[in-house]
Amino acid sequence: MSSQDPYPSRLREKGRSIPRQDPVIHWPGGSDRAHGPLEASLVKQFETDGFLILEDLFSTSEVESFREELLRLSGDQEIRESGEIITEPDSGEVRSVFRIHENSPLFSDLAADPRLAGIAAQILNDELYIHQSRVNYKPGFRGREFYWHSDFETWHSEDGMPRMRALSMSIALTENFEYNGPLMLIPGSHKTFIATEGETPEENFKSSLKKQVVGVPSDDQVRKLAGEGGIVTATGKPGSVIIFDCNVMHGSNGNITPEPRSNVFFVYNAMSNSPVEPFNGQDPRPEYIATRKTIRTLKQTAAQLS
Amino acid sequence: MSSQDPYPSRLREKGRSIPRQDPVIHWPGGSDRAHGPLEASLVKQFETDGFLILEDLFSTSEVESFREELLRLSGDQEIRESGEIITEPDSGEVRSVFRIHENSPLFSDLAADPRLAGIAAQILNDELYIHQSRVNYKPGFRGREFYWHSDFETWHSEDGMPRMRALSMSIALTENFEYNGPLMLIPGSHKTFIATEGETPEENFKSSLKKQVVGVPSDDQVRKLAGEGGIVTATGKPGSVIIFDCNVMHGSNGNITPEPRSNVFFVYNAMSNSPVEPFNGQDPRPEYIATRKTIRTLKQTAAQLS
Repeated sequence: MSSQDPYPSRLREKGRSIPRQDPVIHWPGGSDRAHGPLEASLVKQFETDGFLILEDLFSTSEVESFREELLRLSGDQEIRESGEIITEPDSGEVRSVFRIHENSPLFSDLAADPRLAGIAAQILNDELYIHQSRVNYKPGFRGREFYWHSDFETWHSEDGMPRMRALSMSIALTENFEYNGPLMLIPGSHKTFIATEGETPEENFKSSLKKQVVGVPSDDQVRKLAGEGGIVTATGKPGSVIIFDCNVMHGSNGNITPEPRSNVFFVYNAMSNSPVEPFNGQDPRPEYIATRKTIRTLKQTAAQLS
Repeated sequence: MSSQDPYPSRLREKGRSIPRQDPVIHWPGGSDRAHGPLEASLVKQFETDGFLILEDLFSTSEVESFREELLRLSGDQEIRESGEIITEPDSGEVRSVFRIHENSPLFSDLAADPRLAGIAAQILNDELYIHQSRVNYKPGFRGREFYWHSDFETWHSEDGMPRMRALSMSIALTENFEYNGPLMLIPGSHKTFIATEGETPEENFKSSLKKQVVGVPSDDQVRKLAGEGGIVTATGKPGSVIIFDCNVMHGSNGNITPEPRSNVFFVYNAMSNSPVEPFNGQDPRPEYIATRKTIRTLKQTAAQLS
């Protein structure tokens, strides 16, 4: 399989750069032909930079309802027992709840909301499903960094996502200040696949969600990308949305400030781009981290839960 | 001694807040009477916020000469053997060189430069000497956070600096972006002394320069200060200078970006505020971290070296 893999990674030898083999805007004819809620200049900007920050997409009261739903899910005994929740070892406080598009009618509806799904369809031009969803809560003071990575590199290597036809949306539930460890992105980095050095350890996901060790670019690779594209800090009020291509290089610094960070996170993938066997040759990650058995379109999921 | 200490800290009991007992602007009559290079509105701003960021104080060629001097000092065998240099355990790369106002004519002149010393005198209204000096080089990618702290809390507890009549100046040799772990300050926090909980371990300085564990405020204390004053990120080009009061609460996040950070750092103290016995009751820190035996005015030091 690896001989035909357009995006080989987790290499025994030194990492390298491979030009992106897939379009960013998946309409025949590209950004000029894509139609949907985003105006043409923003589609162009997404194609060029690999991401967009949209302010005021959700109202204060909507954001409040998302926060309340996070609280409700955090206290749900069934979810706590499902393992689809990440808690602090010491305090038991909830840090992430996964698969929220399947276990919460509110978040299922949110994933299918035209303000999000309409834009995803405008870029990906296919029926869509949610590859991964979660809601995160990171307290202040001791927020950890997340090192530079391309999501696609992991989804391809560990989940078997074949091509670059997916994107992420992060809906801010708290304000992203420049100083509380906001997402940082390298504009234009989505046009290069960074094949990384180092084979995947068994059950890598158990530690990689906290600190990624394999699948990360070298210093020289990051320096080159940032030297060409610069670094953008994604600041924004609660209710703002960051939309970013599956292959854009991103990360975040730690956070010693008292300002916590919380967001709802959906990965939209094209149905035609559903996972095959993982390209690293290992067992796939669990279903709650990467959907593969229960792939349903957004409408199917929403209809089932409502 | 501690019964009369206006700023008790390193307490066995819970930390607490104590109103500042000293002026910020040390002229009789305060900021209205202070004269020197800073215009009156900036003196007022320093009094209110506890810090100032001055752009373009040094030219590109001056900054270049500071960088070259850092390189020269890093290679100086005598300094390497003096222990006044901090290197990476693995690579041996230089991270900090201390006491640069005594072992480099260039930096001695810089400490006495009217653009810096004139402002320090305008605020502190006394003959001045350098309590601590250093030049720092922090590479990108793996830059560590430095948690919230007041410098005065350490200088008082560990060095025996009696009162709040000192300030720091940090001259940027690299650009401070919002994303490469720049200094963050809490405006107005210099008006409260945060008495911290926890006694000082022996030879605390050996680890505290890398990661401070005692002498740091509690979450509640930081939350209260930041809630009242907010947080300011000190961005600026090479050649810009951050001037901050000895008691302003500050810290910095880590840095995963490729952009390194380097600065020249001087602590100006009033001669009348020279150290006594450390208020934590332990031995004082070494001379290269806190001057006490070789206190000389700026002019005396500059004259001796040139």
